[in-house]
Amino acid sequence: MQNPVLVEVTRGAVVESLHRGMVAVVDGDGGLVMGLGDIDRPVFPRSATKSMQALALVETGAADAYGFGERELALACSSHSGEPGHMALAGDMAARAGLGEADFECGRHWSSEQSVLIEQARAGDKPNQLGNNCSGKHAGFLCLSCHAGVDHHGYVGYDHFVQSTIRDTVSSLTGDPMGVDNCGTDGCSIPTYASPLRGIAHGFARMATGTGLGPVRAKAAKRLMSACMAEPWYVAGTGRACTELMQIAPGRIFAKTGAEGVFCAAVPEKGVGIALKCEDGAGRGAETMVAAVLAKLFADDGEICGKLGAMASRTMRNWNGIEVGTVRPAGELAG
Amino acid sequence: MQNPVLVEVTRGAVVESLHRGMVAVVDGDGGLVMGLGDIDRPVFPRSATKSMQALALVETGAADAYGFGERELALACSSHSGEPGHMALAGDMAARAGLGEADFECGRHWSSEQSVLIEQARAGDKPNQLGNNCSGKHAGFLCLSCHAGVDHHGYVGYDHFVQSTIRDTVSSLTGDPMGVDNCGTDGCSIPTYASPLRGIAHGFARMATGTGLGPVRAKAAKRLMSACMAEPWYVAGTGRACTELMQIAPGRIFAKTGAEGVFCAAVPEKGVGIALKCEDGAGRGAETMVAAVLAKLFADDGEICGKLGAMASRTMRNWNGIEVGTVRPAGELAG
Repeated sequence: MQNPVLVEVTRGAVVESLHRGMVAVVDGDGGLVMGLGDIDRPVFPRSATKSMQALALVETGAADAYGFGERELALACSSHSGEPGHMALAGDMAARAGLGEADFECGRHWSSEQSVLIEQARAGDKPNQLGNNCSGKHAGFLCLSCHAGVDHHGYVGYDHFVQSTIRDTVSSLTGDPMGVDNCGTDGCSIPTYASPLRGIAHGFARMATGTGLGPVRAKAAKRLMSACMAEPWYVAGTGRACTELMQIAPGRIFAKTGAEGVFCAAVPEKGVGIALKCEDGAGRGAETMVAAVLAKLFADDGEICGKLGAMASRTMRNWNGIEVGTVRPAGELAG
Repeated sequence: MQNPVLVEVTRGAVVESLHRGMVAVVDGDGGLVMGLGDIDRPVFPRSATKSMQALALVETGAADAYGFGERELALACSSHSGEPGHMALAGDMAARAGLGEADFECGRHWSSEQSVLIEQARAGDKPNQLGNNCSGKHAGFLCLSCHAGVDHHGYVGYDHFVQSTIRDTVSSLTGDPMGVDNCGTDGCSIPTYASPLRGIAHGFARMATGTGLGPVRAKAAKRLMSACMAEPWYVAGTGRACTELMQIAPGRIFAKTGAEGVFCAAVPEKGVGIALKCEDGAGRGAETMVAAVLAKLFADDGEICGKLGAMASRTMRNWNGIEVGTVRPAGELAG
């Protein structure tokens, strides 16, 4: 099945590059609201499902035991830019379980945001694990493990309590199996499982609506999504797409990206979850797709629809600030 | 026309992302040696045709008047990483025409190579125009203009002597028209023209073989390609694909990338030019495609073919150094 062109990059009057994609918008009962491309082919959701991975932190009582509020929960669901506030909170979360930077198992890297990286380099910093974009999630993993009385060493391993708990939780939400056969290793070393966008979107719809979930899980899901929507800077960072999408409609849009062109979202008032992937893995493609899909869902709200539309169709400027082209929705997502 | 999948990105045992592309390999007479995807659709070659744009610098005698050797000519054809050696030489080239950094019209940006950027930030540097990846080309433009006795101000403009000269030169090489109708503005503010890959590949085959060129142009083309192959670090930089491709087979492969997933190359001994584009604009896709195409052309040379094949199929590692997947040729380029 050929995935449709959903984004085009123009220069002058010419289309310069194309992005194809798959989009699933699903309701809490699993009904397909919108389906584009091959939404039944397994894809790695990567970091887009961090809020699902964080459910156990809340459900087991670990989040309450360590006094986590909305910022801590948002950071546990984040792929942050490594700005000072992100790094400090990740360290603080681990410290509440008596742990520190050396206990993280996510690896070190410079910020992927150029302005943050330049500040780090100017300050004479070196990359450390708190600056890893996944450090909030890992702080949550460490706390989940410690609260359960399980040795945290090797918590990124497939057989560790943390990962088996996550596997069971996410699989039960999406309805698709997760195991060694569809397992890959993520950037931060935890297992990630390839699964169809249709099921992932259904999982987010269930988190947003509580449909088919027990009371503990429904409450935990609502608490995590609410935390992310209340503290969107902690989910990504300054100028980042997840943060901006949630700032456009406070409390009404949940959005989280994943590597290789994945974006997931939920609109609680519409009762739907969204999961999409840009076929080629490009973040710019996924960002335009998710903004365009959300604009369609908010077609009845001119202000929000307008802001989402502006985010979907961006002007590109060159080093001299001259307008050279656009990134904009195409095909089924155009107009 | 659907462009074929030519590159796949795997994670674990799963294909995570795909890159589609168009590839033209053409001989000096315009005969198609290999054609994949829509090679007759106009694409912007961007920086991949800088060696064509540099022909006038040599043909007019400007290069000799300013004493340019192989390094200067390679830099005039480059998209460099802004390493200190690149910046110094670009400044030196302009100085020979009595000009300096303020006369460049390419704009400022930090190096796109993270390690170079970190060094710049640590040293307290700010971006300047000599660090623009196109500064070598712009130094050549300034010298071309000054040698011709034309006011260099506004040399990036469509109607300036420099750009009209380039337009005539490149169009006569590719055989395709270039004008306001197929014009866009490049990252460094000069006009770029959308034209079919088939013609661009033919142009590189003509540069490599001299077929159909007058003696002055044939000599200038050979001199520029030889300079790039002799000084590949000046064409890109440390660890960059263009540089590594030319280092694999010294004097036998010419290669130059362009933004938005373009790669052009020539193999003089085979008498062919190559022009390709990754449909979605991804550099990793274009790099794998060009290495795979070159590996096919060097199938009779085990050592070179092996090195090109290794470049085409790269292992991806995560922040902990764990092998997580591959970027590798697919479809017609696999195997």
